[in-house]
Amino acid sequence: MTNPTAAMLVIGDEILSGRTRDANMYHLAGELTKIGIDLKEVRVVSDDKDAIVRAVKSLSETYVTVITSGGIGPTHDDITADCVAAAFDRKIDVREDARTLLAAHYDRQGIALNEARLRMARIPEGAALIDNPVSVAPGFRLKNVHVMAGLPSVFQAMVASVLPDLTGGAPLMSETWRIYRGEGDIAGPLGTLAAEYSDLSIGSYPFQKDGRYGANIVLRGTDAALIATALTRLQKLFPQ
Amino acid sequence: MTNPTAAMLVIGDEILSGRTRDANMYHLAGELTKIGIDLKEVRVVSDDKDAIVRAVKSLSETYVTVITSGGIGPTHDDITADCVAAAFDRKIDVREDARTLLAAHYDRQGIALNEARLRMARIPEGAALIDNPVSVAPGFRLKNVHVMAGLPSVFQAMVASVLPDLTGGAPLMSETWRIYRGEGDIAGPLGTLAAEYSDLSIGSYPFQKDGRYGANIVLRGTDAALIATALTRLQKLFPQ
Repeated sequence: MTNPTAAMLVIGDEILSGRTRDANMYHLAGELTKIGIDLKEVRVVSDDKDAIVRAVKSLSETYVTVITSGGIGPTHDDITADCVAAAFDRKIDVREDARTLLAAHYDRQGIALNEARLRMARIPEGAALIDNPVSVAPGFRLKNVHVMAGLPSVFQAMVASVLPDLTGGAPLMSETWRIYRGEGDIAGPLGTLAAEYSDLSIGSYPFQKDGRYGANIVLRGTDAALIATALTRLQKLFPQ
Repeated sequence: MTNPTAAMLVIGDEILSGRTRDANMYHLAGELTKIGIDLKEVRVVSDDKDAIVRAVKSLSETYVTVITSGGIGPTHDDITADCVAAAFDRKIDVREDARTLLAAHYDRQGIALNEARLRMARIPEGAALIDNPVSVAPGFRLKNVHVMAGLPSVFQAMVASVLPDLTGGAPLMSETWRIYRGEGDIAGPLGTLAAEYSDLSIGSYPFQKDGRYGANIVLRGTDAALIATALTRLQKLFPQ
């Protein structure tokens, strides 16, 4: 497959401490798949400057698009913008267009644009703002790194803002066939089928449900006709 | 904090394609936190040999303990054991103790130990087996890398097998205080408090629920008395 690649960087002690179960990775994975971008890697790192800078550099060099989640709010533990600036050796300061957005938003609500809230207008030099239709404080894009909020409702809105600007590929389609047999029984013929349909990615995902073992066989690819042919073969190999 | 560090490597196209929502990361994060091991990083990579080998090497060099999830079943897409062997330049082959475990297990059920199932007895040279009380096919530990199944029920059982052998630290405790005010209002005083209690990790996690914005402030640390003192201060700063 030659679809464009992407990586995600989740910044969040709350995930690594087991306090919060990730929701943004699951959302982004589904959205990117729909538009033919291959999410190749996700990293979750803690709210630690060195760890974030290192991950931003590494992912930015390796993948076409990088999307980050978390750490761009007004509190002391929100250090993502500074880290992305540091990763690309850029200055960072309050920017007028971001300040104007925030000022108008808080003015409408009769809330003061205090020093903490103004932190959310700090944007690395040369970055483009990412629209936040939910709570206004913008994300930003610097080079191939798209910096977004961690709050799921805001993250999802920012992803929706950015998706139309990303160059997608052929949408990845899939068909699933559920087999109530042990993986060990189906592995041989399935491996032969996978070798024969090497333009598809054929995965076997075992499950255990109501005391029964089985596997979901997922055929993925960009050619719907090829997937259909392989599915028919699979269904004949392992009738339900 | 000087607790031992850990990283997790999730191997799975099914997560990256958005088909499956991760469960193992969430489980492991909670379990490690309880015994005082700091989960510092999680990586999710696809079922790709180079990607897995690179991640195993990198995480193994950086953290005290590495735990992997997924890719040790009998099907063609299960390549984790081979990748871990390659990462450490070890040979891999069917090992007698693992074969004996599998043979006894399948014999009890009247199922043939065929070539596919025998793949699950392939263990890198020098590795120690990890007990699998659910479905018998073992995981293994090679150097500081613990290789476990991806099926959540089996992953959790293997984690339980391994936890007693890991050297933990001071268990990380936490208290949460929920504040129904915008983060921008609380950020100033909260930052001052966080600077004062620098032995604690104080995080602010915004939420939006039933149309109201607020933040959960989480105080984390290994000193229960210090957490209690900081919590009292926090409650006085932001009464409910």
